[in-house]
Amino acid sequence: MTDTAFQDYYPDDLSYCYGCGRLNEKGLQLKSFWDGDETVARFEPRPEHMAIPGYVYGGLIASLIDCHGTGSAAAAAYRQAGREMGTEPAFRFVTASLEVRYLRPTPLGVELEVRGRIEEIKGRKVVISATVSADGEVCAEGRAVAVQMPEHMVPPRPAS
Amino acid sequence: MTDTAFQDYYPDDLSYCYGCGRLNEKGLQLKSFWDGDETVARFEPRPEHMAIPGYVYGGLIASLIDCHGTGSAAAAAYRQAGREMGTEPAFRFVTASLEVRYLRPTPLGVELEVRGRIEEIKGRKVVISATVSADGEVCAEGRAVAVQMPEHMVPPRPAS
Repeated sequence: MTDTAFQDYYPDDLSYCYGCGRLNEKGLQLKSFWDGDETVARFEPRPEHMAIPGYVYGGLIASLIDCHGTGSAAAAAYRQAGREMGTEPAFRFVTASLEVRYLRPTPLGVELEVRGRIEEIKGRKVVISATVSADGEVCAEGRAVAVQMPEHMVPPRPAS
Repeated sequence: MTDTAFQDYYPDDLSYCYGCGRLNEKGLQLKSFWDGDETVARFEPRPEHMAIPGYVYGGLIASLIDCHGTGSAAAAAYRQAGREMGTEPAFRFVTASLEVRYLRPTPLGVELEVRGRIEEIKGRKVVISATVSADGEVCAEGRAVAVQMPEHMVPPRPAS
């Protein structure tokens, strides 16, 4: 694993996502990395991220899989293209669909591990499967279909 | 529609969910209501809830469908049992699975409408389909399978 997360390579104007943007000060700032052919992110939910006392709320689990999915998609697209992450033009993905299965209650107060596997890369689409584990036990699993961000969504770059 | 949201009937010890608990001061405090045979919640994302400037991040959309789903499941269970919401024992649901399809970018800065439909009630399970709309246009649709909370997850009640 390197020290630089996938999300830290995103251009500034695409780094405001609440789930994973390094420039969103109120956000979760999820950081994802390669671990061999899998991708991994670690995140400790805040105390307020509860469903009921002691357990993490489902929306956060979905957010982790979502943002780890789009980050993993970008990393996989760079790897497949044989390009270094961060080189222009940037690969940046949005989520087309997301599925989450909550297998058991996710405990609050421990670091969660989100682990992704690239299931498919085809054209502008990348399919990622993911697990969310606590203390080595899988609490949720999911699947995200990520597609390259449509041009009309990309914020205009300032002339330089 | 009545003035009291489904979530406002939850017992205090089950009202700390980040997505919908009325006692979670940092949370989203989603409020869901009946609208005929459908359920509806309205929510305006905070400025920081962005994916990229101008659009809502996907994890929030998933959270809205998740919490509107469990709330709608509780309301549907009470209605089917012919009981008033808030009567004991409380019906309280957790999400077993969640699917979200992001149909178009969801604009930030407007109130979103989450609309649910009860697709199935069977034993301890309720299936809810939902849409998330902005300015009358459906931006995302999803499906949640909710199951009654296992007894071992219910926080112990103080003796009274």
